[in-house]
Amino acid sequence: MPSRPVVLFDVNETLTDLGGIREAFAAAGADPTSAVPWFAGVLRDGFALTLAGRRPRFGDVARAGLRGILPPDAAESVLDRFSNLDLHHDVEPGVRALASRGVRLATLSNGAASVADGVLTRAGLRSLFEALLSVDDAPAWKPDPRSYRYAATSLGVAPADLVLVAVHPWDVDGARAAGLRAAWVNRSGAEYPGVFAAPDHTVNGIEELADLV
Amino acid sequence: MPSRPVVLFDVNETLTDLGGIREAFAAAGADPTSAVPWFAGVLRDGFALTLAGRRPRFGDVARAGLRGILPPDAAESVLDRFSNLDLHHDVEPGVRALASRGVRLATLSNGAASVADGVLTRAGLRSLFEALLSVDDAPAWKPDPRSYRYAATSLGVAPADLVLVAVHPWDVDGARAAGLRAAWVNRSGAEYPGVFAAPDHTVNGIEELADLV
Repeated sequence: MPSRPVVLFDVNETLTDLGGIREAFAAAGADPTSAVPWFAGVLRDGFALTLAGRRPRFGDVARAGLRGILPPDAAESVLDRFSNLDLHHDVEPGVRALASRGVRLATLSNGAASVADGVLTRAGLRSLFEALLSVDDAPAWKPDPRSYRYAATSLGVAPADLVLVAVHPWDVDGARAAGLRAAWVNRSGAEYPGVFAAPDHTVNGIEELADLV
Repeated sequence: MPSRPVVLFDVNETLTDLGGIREAFAAAGADPTSAVPWFAGVLRDGFALTLAGRRPRFGDVARAGLRGILPPDAAESVLDRFSNLDLHHDVEPGVRALASRGVRLATLSNGAASVADGVLTRAGLRSLFEALLSVDDAPAWKPDPRSYRYAATSLGVAPADLVLVAVHPWDVDGARAAGLRAAWVNRSGAEYPGVFAAPDHTVNGIEELADLV
């Protein structure tokens, strides 16, 4: 009997709106546009540590990046905000539409599972997800293939029965390389970068997923 | 008979001054501060593709990142400038001081060897380097340990006989994880981020290296 597919959501930027980080930078007296290079640097450094064979914690890498550009108190206030971001407006209707069709839902984040738990609980959506997974319990960060395989094993399905949903082309690419299907969430109307493996589906928001899966 | 140590330089930002990239952004009518998040994104995406088991070309990743923020012509002009950057002012005296002491010199870049060849040739320093290595000929990008081991094999020395010199903490960390020694070039007076393995040496510029190696 074939297993039922599971929709596996990335969390940071895919579910959560990093606009709150820009506000936190501004509230700390820093340039709000610094939020973008900071977040790119966090991923760069976390991926680099993973390539070097280390197992960094997302929060530690995020804090190290902030300490390079903000005073310690301001860095902590930005980190607090990172754990308390709002969801994008399309997430709640999209997740409810999927759940109402009986689709299994889970998350896989390079960040801590507690962050996903917090934002989904505050939004009243936590009970619709059967698992909130973190690479803290996997052999490596996404997009190392071992991270996606960890999710498949945890959820009791084959990699091909997982549909990763992410705004980041590197996550789409990594999922495809590990044998998953992948949907790219393109809220900004950007062009998909050709250096990455193409997604199976492209949607403008989570609410378009229910018709595809 | 023990082999003689080799000083192995990173190229982008360690030897070359990315200030020229800011000028190229401005000349293209774009915000010059966009150069910083663009370069962080190039490394993020190149590391991600490497984690996914792919072998990206630096130039392809760099172009993809520029195409997301600039018109095609402007993207090409920034890329041209990237291959024609100036060296930092401390590089020429530092490299000459090392060479005059008989220290073996080489480069290892995530970029193309032709870029290192161009900037060092224009500066009249090319003949002081016995090899200009690129991860294009290695199994993976830095900081994957296989990239540093490729350099050791190419140069006929043990990893411990290589001293990697880089401005990037992720490169210092990767070299240490692969068994090399490492010197961090800290031109800006920044604090070294504690998430990365510490360097064996910290210098304010390349000209301080000759007394250490």
